[in-house]
Amino acid sequence: MPSSPIRRLVEYAIRAEQKGVKVHYLNIGQPDVFSPKEFWEATGNAHLDVLEYGHSAGSAGLRSAYASHLTGRGIPVDAADVMVTVGGSEAVLITFLTALNPGDEVITVEPFYANYAGFAVAAGITLVPLTATIDIGFALPAPEEIEQKITDRTKAILLCNPSNPTGQVFAEAELRQIAEIAVARNLYLVVDEVYRDFFYGDDALLSVLQIAGLEQHAVMVDSASKKYSLCGARVGFLVSKNAEFMAAALKFGQARLSAATLEMIGVEACLRGTGPEYFAAVRAEYMARRDLVVRRLQAMPGVTVPPIQGAFYAVVRLPIEDSDQFCQWMVEEFRLETSEGPETVLMAPATGFYITPGLGKQEVRIAYVLDQNRLSRAMDALEAGLAAYQTR
Amino acid sequence: MPSSPIRRLVEYAIRAEQKGVKVHYLNIGQPDVFSPKEFWEATGNAHLDVLEYGHSAGSAGLRSAYASHLTGRGIPVDAADVMVTVGGSEAVLITFLTALNPGDEVITVEPFYANYAGFAVAAGITLVPLTATIDIGFALPAPEEIEQKITDRTKAILLCNPSNPTGQVFAEAELRQIAEIAVARNLYLVVDEVYRDFFYGDDALLSVLQIAGLEQHAVMVDSASKKYSLCGARVGFLVSKNAEFMAAALKFGQARLSAATLEMIGVEACLRGTGPEYFAAVRAEYMARRDLVVRRLQAMPGVTVPPIQGAFYAVVRLPIEDSDQFCQWMVEEFRLETSEGPETVLMAPATGFYITPGLGKQEVRIAYVLDQNRLSRAMDALEAGLAAYQTR
Repeated sequence: MPSSPIRRLVEYAIRAEQKGVKVHYLNIGQPDVFSPKEFWEATGNAHLDVLEYGHSAGSAGLRSAYASHLTGRGIPVDAADVMVTVGGSEAVLITFLTALNPGDEVITVEPFYANYAGFAVAAGITLVPLTATIDIGFALPAPEEIEQKITDRTKAILLCNPSNPTGQVFAEAELRQIAEIAVARNLYLVVDEVYRDFFYGDDALLSVLQIAGLEQHAVMVDSASKKYSLCGARVGFLVSKNAEFMAAALKFGQARLSAATLEMIGVEACLRGTGPEYFAAVRAEYMARRDLVVRRLQAMPGVTVPPIQGAFYAVVRLPIEDSDQFCQWMVEEFRLETSEGPETVLMAPATGFYITPGLGKQEVRIAYVLDQNRLSRAMDALEAGLAAYQTR
Repeated sequence: MPSSPIRRLVEYAIRAEQKGVKVHYLNIGQPDVFSPKEFWEATGNAHLDVLEYGHSAGSAGLRSAYASHLTGRGIPVDAADVMVTVGGSEAVLITFLTALNPGDEVITVEPFYANYAGFAVAAGITLVPLTATIDIGFALPAPEEIEQKITDRTKAILLCNPSNPTGQVFAEAELRQIAEIAVARNLYLVVDEVYRDFFYGDDALLSVLQIAGLEQHAVMVDSASKKYSLCGARVGFLVSKNAEFMAAALKFGQARLSAATLEMIGVEACLRGTGPEYFAAVRAEYMARRDLVVRRLQAMPGVTVPPIQGAFYAVVRLPIEDSDQFCQWMVEEFRLETSEGPETVLMAPATGFYITPGLGKQEVRIAYVLDQNRLSRAMDALEAGLAAYQTR
């Protein structure tokens, strides 16, 4: 079981803080946006006599509220197509357990969300990476490359769209090509869309659930974590119109009983009570952050910044040899002296997002989850750190 | 992946209710005791700006509150020995994933908590059953029988004490014998103690954590679900003094990020705010219920009732041939006409708690989780149903 690369360096950061250093945390996708008041009102007023188990598929109210939410965005689904999971994480794990037998393979695009590797170990299945490179903006590999990876043991293709860690959004044409492969080769096409509300294009994001003819193959993962800045609620969604798949998934759901009852009440209230203006404000804030980060990074010598169309991450290439060492050095040794005292920045080395050894050594993932003032200071620290690292 | 036998018959019960039949639910361990006010106060007042991910091992406050709780009961543990899990269920699953490789074996006593089988499928491991029989009160099989089941692939022995589904509590001498085997054969001894507060003996329950010399082998599972009538909180505990085991378990914890943040706040408040009087009252209520159920069952012709020393379950043998059919017949067809209208009772067929085919066909599990008035009416319905079934 691999250690989480995102959390590995946190100990160094804590030690730096203990010495009075201000650390800007860009290492983890924990948004700072306030959780909706609807959540606190609903949970604060719940006061049930007994906090009972929820239904293993999720409360009827939450499933129907989420189905309405998607339907209102042009993705028509029924409550029966929705299972509430313990975060998007569990939705991915249950998908692995349901769609694959131990030893089976899932094709996924690297760099990918590091915890996919953990779920693969837990489910006893193999992740087969298709490498996307920063030089072509982390675009999807060509369909022929995907075809070449398919074996008798391949049961699914897994994408994250918008992508954690790269912020890449797959073009509709690319997604439809992959859908054709999934149908032709009878594979599940699983798309982790937990960042679907963080898409910075002009049109709506194409969901895997909207691709005609893919109904029996499409599996979508979503979550309240990023959508409502409720990472701690551990409420996610597994969505598919394949009734057999959903019935099998529910058996794994029954074994773990249910998601947390009180948090389901709170998330339902958010789905029913917040409207497009909530998401518009959050999206505008993140777009401004992205623009700030991209502008600052592009101005740093030797830094490669691919296009970032969604999520709140960027994988960028730095003029360094080893991002693990550099990220550690930044929190362990480098301090930018400012009028507010010494500062530094914690980033995630990108190596942990690749499965192919040696890839990502010059890259880091930056999560732009701080307000613009702090992001700006974090970029000051990174810029100064890069300069100091090269002349050290 | 097996279906949950406990939940399978619920649909019949719902249909009966739709026809105006009062169904007494004795099929699932959802206690009716009120959740502590401390939980609602703490969660209602939380109102954080952002509901962030918790630490993967659980919040520092909850881990330390739980460690103090155990220490106060003569089971000295440190917060570092404790990992907060998504219910006791996840603690068992993570133990399987941590202690075993796919294909490895866990010896457990049947009848056992049906979801263990689901976790075994999810982890790709094999449960090897040791059969306990109702005729000897579901006492543990002799040590020689356990020894005979050990193979090169055996990595752990799993017990539930007090037992779900039988209500059996293992004698200290039995537990110590098994501990000796675990040490001698280098196996983990995993004891699911989620019903530890529901022990009806005079002395304190012996925890696996209290057995001297077993520190590197003992793994204990606990939960807030039954302890505080907080099944919906999905907060459990994995406890071991084996630091290597806990470090490996935490990696699986990191992949799923954390338990629900708000619910951890509520459970911490319960641990800090409730005292022995809380548990004494709950225990007294359950003892009265047990006495009622046992007295009523013993008075029914042909019913075998083993000693019940803990938890809130009983597995009893009925004068029937097939408990699946009987339990279904009870909710589908049988109605006891009372002054308050037609009534019936939903029980769990015991077959789902055995892994050996054919066992438990004459047995049902009864969860005495209703107040004494309703339990009494449930026993009326069962008594009448048994009589009607035999003359049908």
